[in-house]
Amino acid sequence: MAVVKLFGAWLSPYVYKVIWALKLKGIPYEYIEEDLSNKSPLLLQYNPIHKKVPVLVHDGKPIYESTVILRYIDEIWPQNPLLPANPYDRAVALFWIKFADDKNPIIAKLYRTEGEEQQAVVKEWLEMLEAMEEHALIGGKKFFGGDEINMVDIAFCMVAHWLGVFEDTAGLKVFEPHKFPQVSSWIQNFKSVPIIKDNLPDTDKIVAYLKRRKEMLLTSKSN
Amino acid sequence: MAVVKLFGAWLSPYVYKVIWALKLKGIPYEYIEEDLSNKSPLLLQYNPIHKKVPVLVHDGKPIYESTVILRYIDEIWPQNPLLPANPYDRAVALFWIKFADDKNPIIAKLYRTEGEEQQAVVKEWLEMLEAMEEHALIGGKKFFGGDEINMVDIAFCMVAHWLGVFEDTAGLKVFEPHKFPQVSSWIQNFKSVPIIKDNLPDTDKIVAYLKRRKEMLLTSKSN
Repeated sequence: MAVVKLFGAWLSPYVYKVIWALKLKGIPYEYIEEDLSNKSPLLLQYNPIHKKVPVLVHDGKPIYESTVILRYIDEIWPQNPLLPANPYDRAVALFWIKFADDKNPIIAKLYRTEGEEQQAVVKEWLEMLEAMEEHALIGGKKFFGGDEINMVDIAFCMVAHWLGVFEDTAGLKVFEPHKFPQVSSWIQNFKSVPIIKDNLPDTDKIVAYLKRRKEMLLTSKSN
Repeated sequence: MAVVKLFGAWLSPYVYKVIWALKLKGIPYEYIEEDLSNKSPLLLQYNPIHKKVPVLVHDGKPIYESTVILRYIDEIWPQNPLLPANPYDRAVALFWIKFADDKNPIIAKLYRTEGEEQQAVVKEWLEMLEAMEEHALIGGKKFFGGDEINMVDIAFCMVAHWLGVFEDTAGLKVFEPHKFPQVSSWIQNFKSVPIIKDNLPDTDKIVAYLKRRKEMLLTSKSN
């Protein structure tokens, strides 16, 4: 019987964060795909506040919010640590994780906004990319924490993978690699980690899904 | 020479969170009041990303974002722990801290919004109060973590003190104690802790300040 279960959805970046953390730690788990248009009673019971994936269930107890889940995983299974050992470096890492977390709900709107609203979202994206380029990835670091992937890299997965997906859906370009050379190298480094590379959702499938979703949202707005 | 310095502003709930944590731990510190309309070069140097208070400087190194500062304080000075020792209980605490953190920027708009926009803010407040009442403070607990104040109580300081301030400024009532009896008792328990009671900003002074600020914002909007 699996002691670790993960309730997820194939297109959620937040779910992938947990999948990568579990795999980087080498923890076997049972994955349960949720239908987000018809959530299971178990998911609603486990996460009554937000009713969202991901939910990690460990020894029968639910943990939710991807960042909280990652902290829990890192504490329970200390191998391949996902945060620096030094308290100051850890505080810096936690700052960047919070920075990414705070931006995520806004920047995820890129594909389903238009006009001025979309310009405001693009502004948030550029602010994030600039902060990463000028303050976090300075000195040609391979990953945010140095030579090894850690929780900060995972927190910025929206930049590494989903930005391209949103750009394709929206039909516009936000990220110009020559303007953000450090971020550009980091994306390559991040996507070269075998566990990341082997566990990414299919871009074409997400783009097709998001295009349908965008159409539905725009139709319902205009009615 | 003080090894701990706190850059703050008298009306910021986020700054009070740090003040309380330092005092609960018994850490001496030097407090530097910032003029938010004319921020010091040192503040901008220490917090180049957000340019905001609070900033804690420990042994010359800056830490920012109140939640990150509190985690750092709790790790560096382990006396009077502000998080549960058990990893699962700690994950639950971190969930509620994130819940409060995510709501804070929205709910803080209560005093400076009107009409439909204010109704949306009120809705967020009520959702937060309901979640606290029905999921976090169940079983007549004195504090979120049980018998002692911890980081979750501090994270919800907006409810304990600033909601009343915002209500007075806006001239409306959001919190009806009989609808939220557990939250109501918790507010009393929280404000009875000597370090909280003795270190709260002057309500009348904040209300007067926020009323002026609201007027300025509304004037600049209508121009």
